[in-house]
Amino acid sequence: MTPGFRFYPTEEELITFYLKHKIQGTDVTRDILRDIDRVIPQLHVYDFYPWDLPQHAGEVCRGDPEQWFFFIPRPEKEARGGRPSRRTSSGYWKATGSPSVVYSSSNRIIGIKRSMVFYNGRAPTGKKTKWKMNEYKAFQQEYSSNTNTTPKVYIF
Amino acid sequence: MTPGFRFYPTEEELITFYLKHKIQGTDVTRDILRDIDRVIPQLHVYDFYPWDLPQHAGEVCRGDPEQWFFFIPRPEKEARGGRPSRRTSSGYWKATGSPSVVYSSSNRIIGIKRSMVFYNGRAPTGKKTKWKMNEYKAFQQEYSSNTNTTPKVYIF
Repeated sequence: MTPGFRFYPTEEELITFYLKHKIQGTDVTRDILRDIDRVIPQLHVYDFYPWDLPQHAGEVCRGDPEQWFFFIPRPEKEARGGRPSRRTSSGYWKATGSPSVVYSSSNRIIGIKRSMVFYNGRAPTGKKTKWKMNEYKAFQQEYSSNTNTTPKVYIF
Repeated sequence: MTPGFRFYPTEEELITFYLKHKIQGTDVTRDILRDIDRVIPQLHVYDFYPWDLPQHAGEVCRGDPEQWFFFIPRPEKEARGGRPSRRTSSGYWKATGSPSVVYSSSNRIIGIKRSMVFYNGRAPTGKKTKWKMNEYKAFQQEYSSNTNTTPKVYIF
């Protein structure tokens, strides 16, 4: 790739292309799914220290200096209606502010975005770090999967 | 190109790849110069309304919703030591704050950056618009051209 070209998606591209196709799964061609996987792989994000995540990014994003993208399967506990746990072995991800609505360029509501910061240690005495994560969920019913997982996109 | 991939260069890439190669001119291969031209064309930026500039962007950047890049030849007046004029037919570009220094990732000074805002009308009564421009000049002596022009990169 020529210098300066990188994966720098809009939120609309993340939700209406990547997340939508990932959720639809078998509805799209194998080629598209393989391409998506090279950009945004699926990973159990909470099993990792934030600083170890970049090396697991998609092959075309691994060299990026500032952001990386992952799908994570919806944790079983959350799928059963429980509160999501964002605890990791060394700390926890804590929401900053309220979730916000993501609009398409045609002003349609397409998703919900949560911003989080990583704290080292255990709540409520953890120490804030510089690691940030944005979580996106597709909003529209049409994107819902028949399976048990609702993939999310994470940006660090 | 897969959705989400776009020209989103670092300042270091702008200066040490695009601006450097543009200034060196005949020192680099025709292929590189043709590639650069498809990304950052040369344009007399001050001959245009800001809102007409996007359509003159490089073919791979023309669809971008928020930023476009141009080289402009150094105006003759400025090359002779005069103060640069940033007046256009309908208004003028005015600096915001002081110029800043651009560092490479290895902490070397590689350029100077000036940020500007477009005002409709004539100074000092012009009306501020939402159009912004960043001007970069390569700093190092090694990038200086033998010709009369010192191209700059503009980001809107």
